[in-house]
Amino acid sequence: MGIDAREACAVFGVFAPERDVSRITYYSLFALQHRGQESSGIAVATDKHIICYKEMGLVQQVFNESILRMLRGHAAIGHNRYSTTGSSTLKNAQPVLFEAQGNEARSFALAHNGNLVNTSELAAEAARFGVSMRASTDTEMIGLLLQQAWQEKPFVDALIEVLGRISGAYSLLILTTDSLYAIRDPLAIRPLALGRFPEGYVVASESAAFPIVGAQYLREVQPGEIVRIDAEGVSSFRFASGEWRMCMFEYFYFCRPDSILRGKEVYSMRIEMGRALAQEARVAADIVVPVPDSGVPAAIGYAEESGSPYHEALIKNRYVGRTFIEPLQMQRELGVRMKLNPLREVIAGKRVVLVDDSIVRGSTSRQIVKMLRQAGAREVHFRVSSPPIKYPCYYGIDFGTYDELIAANLSVEEIRQQPTP
Amino acid sequence: MGIDAREACAVFGVFAPERDVSRITYYSLFALQHRGQESSGIAVATDKHIICYKEMGLVQQVFNESILRMLRGHAAIGHNRYSTTGSSTLKNAQPVLFEAQGNEARSFALAHNGNLVNTSELAAEAARFGVSMRASTDTEMIGLLLQQAWQEKPFVDALIEVLGRISGAYSLLILTTDSLYAIRDPLAIRPLALGRFPEGYVVASESAAFPIVGAQYLREVQPGEIVRIDAEGVSSFRFASGEWRMCMFEYFYFCRPDSILRGKEVYSMRIEMGRALAQEARVAADIVVPVPDSGVPAAIGYAEESGSPYHEALIKNRYVGRTFIEPLQMQRELGVRMKLNPLREVIAGKRVVLVDDSIVRGSTSRQIVKMLRQAGAREVHFRVSSPPIKYPCYYGIDFGTYDELIAANLSVEEIRQQPTP
Amino acid sequence: MGIDAREACAVFGVFAPERDVSRITYYSLFALQHRGQESSGIAVATDKHIICYKEMGLVQQVFNESILRMLRGHAAIGHNRYSTTGSSTLKNAQPVLFEAQGNEARSFALAHNGNLVNTSELAAEAARFGVSMRASTDTEMIGLLLQQAWQEKPFVDALIEVLGRISGAYSLLILTTDSLYAIRDPLAIRPLALGRFPEGYVVASESAAFPIVGAQYLREVQPGEIVRIDAEGVSSFRFASGEWRMCMFEYFYFCRPDSILRGKEVYSMRIEMGRALAQEARVAADIVVPVPDSGVPAAIGYAEESGSPYHEALIKNRYVGRTFIEPLQMQRELGVRMKLNPLREVIAGKRVVLVDDSIVRGSTSRQIVKMLRQAGAREVHFRVSSPPIKYPCYYGIDFGTYDELIAANLSVEEIRQQPTP
Amino acid sequence: MGIDAREACAVFGVFAPERDVSRITYYSLFALQHRGQESSGIAVATDKHIICYKEMGLVQQVFNESILRMLRGHAAIGHNRYSTTGSSTLKNAQPVLFEAQGNEARSFALAHNGNLVNTSELAAEAARFGVSMRASTDTEMIGLLLQQAWQEKPFVDALIEVLGRISGAYSLLILTTDSLYAIRDPLAIRPLALGRFPEGYVVASESAAFPIVGAQYLREVQPGEIVRIDAEGVSSFRFASGEWRMCMFEYFYFCRPDSILRGKEVYSMRIEMGRALAQEARVAADIVVPVPDSGVPAAIGYAEESGSPYHEALIKNRYVGRTFIEPLQMQRELGVRMKLNPLREVIAGKRVVLVDDSIVRGSTSRQIVKMLRQAGAREVHFRVSSPPIKYPCYYGIDFGTYDELIAANLSVEEIRQQPTP
Repeated sequence: MGIDAREACAVFGVFAPERDVSRITYYSLFALQHRGQESSGIAVATDKHIICYKEMGLVQQVFNESILRMLRGHAAIGHNRYSTTGSSTLKNAQPVLFEAQGNEARSFALAHNGNLVNTSELAAEAARFGVSMRASTDTEMIGLLLQQAWQEKPFVDALIEVLGRISGAYSLLILTTDSLYAIRDPLAIRPLALGRFPEGYVVASESAAFPIVGAQYLREVQPGEIVRIDAEGVSSFRFASGEWRMCMFEYFYFCRPDSILRGKEVYSMRIEMGRALAQEARVAADIVVPVPDSGVPAAIGYAEESGSPYHEALIKNRYVGRTFIEPLQMQRELGVRMKLNPLREVIAGKRVVLVDDSIVRGSTSRQIVKMLRQAGAREVHFRVSSPPIKYPCYYGIDFGTYDELIAANLSVEEIRQQPTP
Repeated sequence: MGIDAREACAVFGVFAPERDVSRITYYSLFALQHRGQESSGIAVATDKHIICYKEMGLVQQVFNESILRMLRGHAAIGHNRYSTTGSSTLKNAQPVLFEAQGNEARSFALAHNGNLVNTSELAAEAARFGVSMRASTDTEMIGLLLQQAWQEKPFVDALIEVLGRISGAYSLLILTTDSLYAIRDPLAIRPLALGRFPEGYVVASESAAFPIVGAQYLREVQPGEIVRIDAEGVSSFRFASGEWRMCMFEYFYFCRPDSILRGKEVYSMRIEMGRALAQEARVAADIVVPVPDSGVPAAIGYAEESGSPYHEALIKNRYVGRTFIEPLQMQRELGVRMKLNPLREVIAGKRVVLVDDSIVRGSTSRQIVKMLRQAGAREVHFRVSSPPIKYPCYYGIDFGTYDELIAANLSVEEIRQQPTP
Repeated sequence: MGIDAREACAVFGVFAPERDVSRITYYSLFALQHRGQESSGIAVATDKHIICYKEMGLVQQVFNESILRMLRGHAAIGHNRYSTTGSSTLKNAQPVLFEAQGNEARSFALAHNGNLVNTSELAAEAARFGVSMRASTDTEMIGLLLQQAWQEKPFVDALIEVLGRISGAYSLLILTTDSLYAIRDPLAIRPLALGRFPEGYVVASESAAFPIVGAQYLREVQPGEIVRIDAEGVSSFRFASGEWRMCMFEYFYFCRPDSILRGKEVYSMRIEMGRALAQEARVAADIVVPVPDSGVPAAIGYAEESGSPYHEALIKNRYVGRTFIEPLQMQRELGVRMKLNPLREVIAGKRVVLVDDSIVRGSTSRQIVKMLRQAGAREVHFRVSSPPIKYPCYYGIDFGTYDELIAANLSVEEIRQQPTP
Repeated sequence: MGIDAREACAVFGVFAPERDVSRITYYSLFALQHRGQESSGIAVATDKHIICYKEMGLVQQVFNESILRMLRGHAAIGHNRYSTTGSSTLKNAQPVLFEAQGNEARSFALAHNGNLVNTSELAAEAARFGVSMRASTDTEMIGLLLQQAWQEKPFVDALIEVLGRISGAYSLLILTTDSLYAIRDPLAIRPLALGRFPEGYVVASESAAFPIVGAQYLREVQPGEIVRIDAEGVSSFRFASGEWRMCMFEYFYFCRPDSILRGKEVYSMRIEMGRALAQEARVAADIVVPVPDSGVPAAIGYAEESGSPYHEALIKNRYVGRTFIEPLQMQRELGVRMKLNPLREVIAGKRVVLVDDSIVRGSTSRQIVKMLRQAGAREVHFRVSSPPIKYPCYYGIDFGTYDELIAANLSVEEIRQQPTP
């Protein structure tokens, strides 16, 4: 792959007065660490106020026993933020806490996964009314609008008003002193699942967080739905008529294989994609090799369907992942070489089907094909389980402009004919 | 698995006056990061002296551009140390530098992977001669003996004398101002490979380090062999008649799959082990599932040989590995649950062959079998690619005493009949 | 000086439901930073439970805005721990929290400055009754005894029982969910002062913490007194008939000059000591020079009384203090030289009176006298404001054994005749 | 005071082939830590190349034994950088190394204390010739110009050409593989002293660094002088006719009291300033009190001359200095209160002469006067040892614009009449 997912953050929420809500949030954020490694935070509600703790770093670096013990309350939300260059500061960490001066019981905290597309219009509009909206993030903008609207009408009315004004992708959790709200945009672009355990309810970007804390998957939060969880249980509101347009990258790239999307395990979908690929574009081959890790399930599915044996013939250095936290200049030069090493014995003289989940710019794919050839592959057949990526994304995935997307400029056949570097 | 490998360190050496030896060592240590994450160090030789830099942490944390630029010379050795409780201090980091006061050209540095079994005898012996051997590690002991012996005879003679006195497992690199020595104990217990590139030679715990720096695998350093690399090229001495008794854990657990052991890629051996397992103990099954990551190649081999489809039905949290750097009390309690999550859709109603590389104490294996049953598996057949571990190890692998080893106390059949927790 | 004060910690407590008690404690601990730089902690009480946060480091390193905001309650205690080799771990940080399982409202936290002299007897005694007292610090021992006693009788009765069993120096704060207790041993060896502001009460090792938080000094906690502060105000109990035997090092070394001991500012006492010194041992001199910083007030007093002009002719490197956090080997060698530099122009040809607060081993004093001579002093007269230190201390000041104390072995005249190094 | 000295950095250089030049530089930088706490660095020259190590932090945090041992050579320069907001990054740390690609023996390193006033003109001029001068600091600009000029003429000629083009304040050290250059601008605005020990020569921002490494003060580097130190010894060039216009802040604020400026100890000058103040503006008083620490010597001089007794009646929290490394918001609010505490017993009822070295904006001074009045002073007479600061500084001291300087807007009498807050 090689995409940079600005908004593949993780959100998690729990309402369970009898349980240790900060610890439950901690474990769940740990299970969702793959969606964001830059910063982590937890906000907790008591009857009187909301407290929040967040720091740069992985979940296990940010929290310790002492901090979890200070975060006591009846409900909590948490957030893992993805690392991107430029904006990597504690100021952008979430949840974002909006404290009501003089009346702390009207404070609230937000945790958000998504990307709005009309923030500059919202800021301009606010300016016209003489209100300065100094929001450095989408999350802050939503919070400021909500804070303002809540001064004039009940919370849910205010919330529906704000949701009517914002456009874009958002899976949003809001914690007030008495309720936890889970909201999904009308296209349901980012995932958000609802679960339960005996003493309460949980919501999470991915259901893979549920088993660790003993919760069961119930259902997706629906497009255009507000779910409210409070002492009375769960209630639901529709603020917009929605339809399912979930980001396809969630299906084949972002989500953990053990998460459930719309009732089905992601792993199984990926296996099916591999099978379909074998049905559509089978070729006589000696081995089926995944690009690790993103191509693994599709390769297994392809191998099973095609009858050619599956082999993990590209060995990944597990410690490479860490480098992006503090990249060393010299490593970029070595590029793919530092990350993957081919198994010569397995590859030499073989007809290889190479399976990945997607091609974005095509540069890494070229390097890998070259690497297989240098390792002695007789033939290399590249199979990709997702459709060609022909358009940039405005909802939070940063794989650049038309110019950079190889499938926006070349047909599949033309891509195939690209020379190896 | 779940073993604690006190001595699965990585060593690397390079002699190449025209190349940037510290940078080559840096990349190679990065490729060998899996053998040790506690500390890392590089020693570099000039004509006049040897300099050394080491710190606690991963290779990428220990070194930066400034430090690599200070480490200039014609030859270098490096070391990654494995993390174990109790002795996790900078004092135990390697390489260990022995500076000759007043004549720095007679300084030397050591990098060692292994475990001696007669250090207390050596210390006692030294004490009899009125010499205090205050060595806190095996490596320091070897260095002190060598420093003493070198005062009386030429370096190679001194080295052979010292090697005659020590017993145990050792793959040892010694850097002097003019030469690089690579030594392997008479049983060749720990791995050590020799490679070359146009401008010089490299030695490494595993050959997987070679491709990254553009070097080719030549051969293993032999049991009881001293390889010397200097301006004249490579020369070889035998200090003992040896025989091959390499640690079996290297074959199925420690080594990267892309390393070459005695001429053969480790991945292929592991595939063969899986095939053999299917031949010896085939069972009618719906899916073959590895315990990630150690069971993967054997499961692929088993699946291929048996005809049952391979599925990665236990999802591992990739961030768990980091916890052992600073383990949180609460995580231990959740144990296996934090680390692995089963795919219910894949497992439910199926006859499952579960493949791992080994069973040590058996406690984790029991948890995993239980987890599969809870996920709805109709049958669970556990297959293990290594032989039963019946004896403790004195050469550096800390899997405890007879009492703790399940196969030291029970037959395979008795193990099979152990109740699920 | 050069003594190592194992038990010069700082304690602080506040009971003020209408104020931000954790922030008040934070500022006060900052004002008392000089009594301990190793670790810092704050415990806060709500009606339902007690929470505690502590870490290694200075007050400003340990706490931040987020953490202070999580520490909400109606009362708090805090602690700064002094740094000593060997036991410098988070486990020894204070306050120590004793949580009552199942009934958190019976939890309590302790912050302690002092040193018990009968802990091994207490442990042995406990062992006789089949109770294992695994206390690694005095504070933990007191807490364990109190926890046990409270199971059988009301809190104050339990407390008085425990105080009857322990011997030694202690200024002790105990925080329960409804009260704050301040206790001083029957000899009042360590300082402890009571203060008030409009909304509540404070207690502190030193009254210098009071002005920063707007509190007024009321009085000392008396020898053998328990002060209880709760919603009703202040009440007092005597658990032993006491007498004043405060550690003399508090008067001339530990305490800030702006602290009040027994109603008088410490600075004024130190000026008086200098004046008395001039009356007892005046000598014709050109300048009066303090050993910085401990000798400054006594030198000012001596100069004023004697009529010779005061000059700060030894310049201290303000950054030396930091080294003891992570001492570099090389610095110890340079010793006094790194720390003090004489002003040649001021000293050359002069008759110098050098004033310090005490002599312990005498080695630093010798170095300083030598330094003055090398800078050209015509005469050097050393004047010391405290009495000769003739006996080791068992109450927490670690200046060693009889052998090491110069005044335990030599008369003042003999000390005077010691050769300069 | 309260000024922010953007360019009060420390530079140090040593040429001494037989000594451990990096260790000497380390100790000297430690002695000059007061001139800069943000970052520290050392560059070392061998015959073949120059190596450099620098990091954010104090000297003792940046260097350790391992790093000093890697920094071997015959000459070295070092630098401590002052902390200012905005530009506090490793990129601005010094020395700055200019490596000659392909011919490392023509590399050089610069360490600079000062502020150029014509950098934008130099950049514009370079741009006219089609050369992009991407220099983010003055030091980098000087280095780029020098690198360019050296391509066309011998080093000293190139250096003189560059010095002819730059304007402003600079005390500059340049290290080449064979020489160490010490240069001072024609007005000698920043200090720079030359010293010697038996085996070589040293240069430093302040001579207080010399005694620690056993060197003797020789003389100032003169206005408009280039001093070259190499294997032949010391030689001198004049690149401009200069005159003494040293920054007055060096005399009364920046320099250590034990440094020698133009042959005289700074402490003595400050005492003289205090005496002069007493002669010019004596008043009947009970005590003379310094604003610590900057007002201490002048207060001692004033007290001695006036006959009123000297008392340190404002107690400074020694740990405040550390806060500016990571300032906490809440501390700024408490301002002066956190830093200084008055001694009520000493002050109450007294006529106080308060002595400081300067008034910049006047805000802190007002707070201190108020504090003395609240502590009961009967009269407060403020005496300032430096002349009124009437003009902003373009040579590196950031005390702002005309508007902010109280003495640029008010006469001394008007300042006196300012109301206490």
